[in-house]
Amino acid sequence: MSRPRTTPGPSPSAPRNAPDTSRSAPGGARDTAPWTAFGGDLHLDLTGRRAAGAGLRAALEDALREAVQDGRLAPGTRLPSSRALGEDLGIARNTVVEAYGQLTAEGWLSSRQGSGTTVAERAAPRPADRAVTDRAVSVRAGRRPTGRYDLLAGRPDLSLFPRSAWLASARRALAVAPHEAFDYGSPLGRIELRRALSDYLARVRGVRTDPERLLVCAGFGQGLGLLAAALRERGAGRVAVESSGLPPQHEVLRAAGQTLVPLPVDGAGARTDLLAGLSSAEGGPDRLGAVLLTPAHQFPTGAVLAADRRAAAVRWAREHDGYVIEDDYDGEFRYDRQPLGAMQALDPDRVVYGGTAAKSLAPGLRLAWLALPDELVEPVARLKGLADTMSPVIDQLTFAELITSGRYDRHVRRCRLHYRRRRDLLVAALAERAPHVRVTGVAAGLHAVLQLPPGSRPEAELVERAAAAGLVLTGLGWYRADPPPAPPGPPALVVGYATPSDRAFPAALDALCAVLREG
Amino acid sequence: MSRPRTTPGPSPSAPRNAPDTSRSAPGGARDTAPWTAFGGDLHLDLTGRRAAGAGLRAALEDALREAVQDGRLAPGTRLPSSRALGEDLGIARNTVVEAYGQLTAEGWLSSRQGSGTTVAERAAPRPADRAVTDRAVSVRAGRRPTGRYDLLAGRPDLSLFPRSAWLASARRALAVAPHEAFDYGSPLGRIELRRALSDYLARVRGVRTDPERLLVCAGFGQGLGLLAAALRERGAGRVAVESSGLPPQHEVLRAAGQTLVPLPVDGAGARTDLLAGLSSAEGGPDRLGAVLLTPAHQFPTGAVLAADRRAAAVRWAREHDGYVIEDDYDGEFRYDRQPLGAMQALDPDRVVYGGTAAKSLAPGLRLAWLALPDELVEPVARLKGLADTMSPVIDQLTFAELITSGRYDRHVRRCRLHYRRRRDLLVAALAERAPHVRVTGVAAGLHAVLQLPPGSRPEAELVERAAAAGLVLTGLGWYRADPPPAPPGPPALVVGYATPSDRAFPAALDALCAVLREG
Repeated sequence: MSRPRTTPGPSPSAPRNAPDTSRSAPGGARDTAPWTAFGGDLHLDLTGRRAAGAGLRAALEDALREAVQDGRLAPGTRLPSSRALGEDLGIARNTVVEAYGQLTAEGWLSSRQGSGTTVAERAAPRPADRAVTDRAVSVRAGRRPTGRYDLLAGRPDLSLFPRSAWLASARRALAVAPHEAFDYGSPLGRIELRRALSDYLARVRGVRTDPERLLVCAGFGQGLGLLAAALRERGAGRVAVESSGLPPQHEVLRAAGQTLVPLPVDGAGARTDLLAGLSSAEGGPDRLGAVLLTPAHQFPTGAVLAADRRAAAVRWAREHDGYVIEDDYDGEFRYDRQPLGAMQALDPDRVVYGGTAAKSLAPGLRLAWLALPDELVEPVARLKGLADTMSPVIDQLTFAELITSGRYDRHVRRCRLHYRRRRDLLVAALAERAPHVRVTGVAAGLHAVLQLPPGSRPEAELVERAAAAGLVLTGLGWYRADPPPAPPGPPALVVGYATPSDRAFPAALDALCAVLREG
Repeated sequence: MSRPRTTPGPSPSAPRNAPDTSRSAPGGARDTAPWTAFGGDLHLDLTGRRAAGAGLRAALEDALREAVQDGRLAPGTRLPSSRALGEDLGIARNTVVEAYGQLTAEGWLSSRQGSGTTVAERAAPRPADRAVTDRAVSVRAGRRPTGRYDLLAGRPDLSLFPRSAWLASARRALAVAPHEAFDYGSPLGRIELRRALSDYLARVRGVRTDPERLLVCAGFGQGLGLLAAALRERGAGRVAVESSGLPPQHEVLRAAGQTLVPLPVDGAGARTDLLAGLSSAEGGPDRLGAVLLTPAHQFPTGAVLAADRRAAAVRWAREHDGYVIEDDYDGEFRYDRQPLGAMQALDPDRVVYGGTAAKSLAPGLRLAWLALPDELVEPVARLKGLADTMSPVIDQLTFAELITSGRYDRHVRRCRLHYRRRRDLLVAALAERAPHVRVTGVAAGLHAVLQLPPGSRPEAELVERAAAAGLVLTGLGWYRADPPPAPPGPPALVVGYATPSDRAFPAALDALCAVLREG
């Protein structure tokens, strides 16, 4: 706001030889004043800052800094002398001198012999925030479409996260953790968690490993990226993946310089019997170095990798210096029977076991682990160290306590019952109200694939109709690897049944069945 | 333990038509039995497993799995019929059938028509653990030499980590966090923390940013790696660094495909006036894309980047489409005066501000942040998403609460006093007992550089003598960038004074002064 210009020089209301009010009570100084000495109209408001408890000098610095930042003080502008400004504001000259000195050191002002203090050359004012806000939004992970009912696969019921059990474990973990636990540490992760995990994985999944072969990573995706980079270093530039899989994982592999070789998937899982044939180009960056599999519960089709396919994959790995990467993302959630043990136990020197807390606890924890073959411990740990030194310690200590205290087992059991009920409701509803739809795959995990009979509407159209009904879900095609090894089959929808709340789930089922009936 | 071979077939002690004890009390089955039907001597012990509450079938599966794993059951070995084994163990035949089925599905056993059930082809037994243990140890981060007194620079006093305040903040954060907070989220990090940080950084360090330009990363090292990769994508393959810096940071830059160009460092900080001259090769991968600086407190020499050097760096960045990366690792710890504001405020579109909780709280948190120019928000966020989706949420929510509740400010103040006292003790001890040693740099941070007069023993020898006296520290040479832009100066030691306990610190000072007196 422009104010009537007054004559330069001390304003009448400012007593000469003003006492150094910077040492007196805040009220001692006039907290706002027209900056008449400035030769332009500038209103320096120190009130707010003084009220916030800032010292007089700090308040003045902030006010000046702001004036430069918002352009009220243009580059090159000559500032009043410290005496004049001091009198103008009714504060001690030294306070102004100190403020000028600080801002000069910071690069806001520059003072040259003779020419006094001027505003330094500055950048143009910031662009408006909108543009970047949009851009920042556009890079948000997920970028999920929104609807009344979220049936996208791959996420647990977030309301089940055991907040109080987690806090209790954190309290106990922090009570006993040594000081060095908070220091830089091993890229493998905290030993407490690696011990707890190696026991837990042996007991629950039959994994054969030990704390020195376990690496804690920030989500399985990070672990996969580290493995892909380690394989690249070893001269292997191709990775076989399941023809239906997780596109974000494919992105991670490609970003690590790997070429993808999709394997067809049938009712017995991925066609690992084809691996030997793909290993033609031996040596060189074109070498097939690994196959990424979801043996316990193929994602998303839900098939269990058959025994001979497991054997074929391990045989290929042994004969071609390759590795099997076992993504055991939901191995704890099998509902109809005892889950198959981890494939890793068939050959811990050729199979990398990957597990995660993303489904059993929450994706936001970014807690996952790799059980590594001896040969890969050093390269993968080195790359983890380069990436982020190690994973954060407090979550690791807490999770270790959650496991050893038995709280984790109880939580997983509770979740298993919850998700099983969800799946039963889905299957029953479909059997009754959309009997032409076939639910493929075994009773496990947090999602199901709904196969429609040939001749139904195309997937894209079904997804559209679902969206119109407030359902957020995808077709099986969304998960198809690129390039697809085979033409797409009949239309199918992938339904994550864990995410909606108990209240919303029945309505979501109604909407889904309605869409499928018209299917 | 070999036992006298008995005749094949049911052992006399096994009643024919044994009842299905798998449904009766554990005691109902003989929990151990010589496996006579096996045709070899195998002792299957189910006792422990049954005691641990395992079902009879599970216990049998585990016992068989273990026998295969430890080689007692060699590949190809033919197993007894389910009837024979059932009678042998005095358990129901069906239980054995189920167990065989499970293990066959898992790939341990294989059953062919006619030839019955045999042990599948297996990997050789695991190699001994020692080798890999050593290797795993060798990849541990830090790999610090050990001694009585740890004076290595770069770490806070870990005993100051505010465990109870952290827990209190975690409790409050988890009490109010929405369920979606535990889901996959923005690669920028949780909005709660970005809001708290943008206010905190503006208030304490004069940083000009907003939540949409802040990215939470797993340590500044990760942020630096992401920036280096983003610059590489933009066709810039060289980064200028300070001639004395942090070798691990140099590793990260090189791993991202960047070539390092060391800038000499003098009493006014890095010679940023030389940048323009280094930008000769414009365009192409050889383009100089950024300069990494520690303006508030050069690491490790302790110089403050002078105003004209700040201006020169920003001018270079504007004129050559370059970026200044400001590593503000200990900006909160200035003891003699108010610290200079962040250089980033001079031009938020050209300066990336990097901060961390590694010194103010603990390195183990892996919590750091970047205030990014608009142009870099999208590329860096995309790369963060590829690396690990986002940083873990619970620490972020907790840290946000710690800041907004004022607990963080109180903690930082307490640390500042503590470290200032440490530094004063060091300086006083040296002045009195090793007056020929000069402490360079400003009174700030967690370390000091001790300059010895020319003609003193070489650094390596001083470090050796220090080690002999139980002191773990390094010479200034350890931090020299490669290639060094200038010949090394007189010998100097870098002393981290934060790490030893209050009890140990006086003795550490005694030892240090003794070594330096002989210097």
